[in-house]
Amino acid sequence: MDANKVVLYDFFDSNSAWRVRNVLYWKSIPFDTVSVNLMKGEQKSEEFGKLNPINTVPVLFIDGHYITQSVAICEYLEETRPEHPIFPTNSLDRARVRQIVEIINSYMVPLQNPATAQRASKEVSEQTAWSLEFFQKGFTALEHLISKTSGKYCVGDIVTFADMCLIGLVWRTKRFNPDPVNFPSIFRIYDELLKLPTFRLAHAASHRDCPPGLKDTLHLPIHFHDNPG
Amino acid sequence: MDANKVVLYDFFDSNSAWRVRNVLYWKSIPFDTVSVNLMKGEQKSEEFGKLNPINTVPVLFIDGHYITQSVAICEYLEETRPEHPIFPTNSLDRARVRQIVEIINSYMVPLQNPATAQRASKEVSEQTAWSLEFFQKGFTALEHLISKTSGKYCVGDIVTFADMCLIGLVWRTKRFNPDPVNFPSIFRIYDELLKLPTFRLAHAASHRDCPPGLKDTLHLPIHFHDNPG
Repeated sequence: MDANKVVLYDFFDSNSAWRVRNVLYWKSIPFDTVSVNLMKGEQKSEEFGKLNPINTVPVLFIDGHYITQSVAICEYLEETRPEHPIFPTNSLDRARVRQIVEIINSYMVPLQNPATAQRASKEVSEQTAWSLEFFQKGFTALEHLISKTSGKYCVGDIVTFADMCLIGLVWRTKRFNPDPVNFPSIFRIYDELLKLPTFRLAHAASHRDCPPGLKDTLHLPIHFHDNPG
Repeated sequence: MDANKVVLYDFFDSNSAWRVRNVLYWKSIPFDTVSVNLMKGEQKSEEFGKLNPINTVPVLFIDGHYITQSVAICEYLEETRPEHPIFPTNSLDRARVRQIVEIINSYMVPLQNPATAQRASKEVSEQTAWSLEFFQKGFTALEHLISKTSGKYCVGDIVTFADMCLIGLVWRTKRFNPDPVNFPSIFRIYDELLKLPTFRLAHAASHRDCPPGLKDTLHLPIHFHDNPG
């Protein structure tokens, strides 16, 4: 691989890969992508397993090295490409950003994701109940936290890495259609984020691999996805 | 709460709280503890839920604020108390540390922990199989990664935050008794870490709340825990 290239191993609907897309577009870092279709199980191939032995996207090839795990990648991008920062300057605000990131990355995403729900039960209804339970718990915690830290965005009035992690998870709620009345800060911020050009570029619904039926969802507030009337 | 005090909401066997203990002792930051007994469900109390709405330890009271989520806490400690660092200076090495931390914190711990296994099945044998599956997958990935990055410790020859996250997870394998032959780097590093005074102070088996039957395990290589002969 040409060491001057930046290459993202990506899937349109991976929450973790989406974070990295958000950061790459935000920082104006040009990158190529390699599509790893999680629905077809391509992440389980021997070849991909050599890049990431827990068989998850994203993997980023950058500065001549492969880096896995989305937060490790994004912290590396921030350290090596500090222009267009994704963290506030104040340490307490940075901690607030990382709290939100960690609830999403270490609680909600691993526990509610389809692979975990499918491992927990063969019944589709039980898989949905499983995912919904962790969604509700995590979203309730996030709403509580964000209601205290947010201004226009998750932490104050500047866009941070917390927003870059939140957007994908909100979009995923289209499966559950939660009542936005219970999560006013989260849904308000989602609508704000959709106005930002780099967030629209990185959005799953803008991705070349997104199925046509989902492409429209970019233009809609999330709570109308399943209930357009 | 006295704003000059540092107070850790803690449980001896919580992998996440143990990380924070490791960092506090490593950096010589004096702290008090409040015990939250996860086995008795004290984390589910209304009072504790106000501190952390996802009902997990650790919570750290510091500089007049409550911070939740172990990695957010430890990154904050590193930024505000840089003496006795927990990260290397080079960005690629820092990314290697964060990769290890994230596999532990966002894959292994949430997926194998008893609460998740108990949610997945009422059968104890199935709970064990569940936890073991994620342990094997995560440990195999970590061994692969650490075999390339380690010197004396996880990343090179200096102690880092990766070691502070690894030790608790290795101790937890006493339930499974995995063959150390398959994870030579991990078990070698565990034995090295046990030689360090602050790691011995922070160890679950040194904790005042550790049941007497487990206290001995501090002095034993992990692969002899269940099989002392």
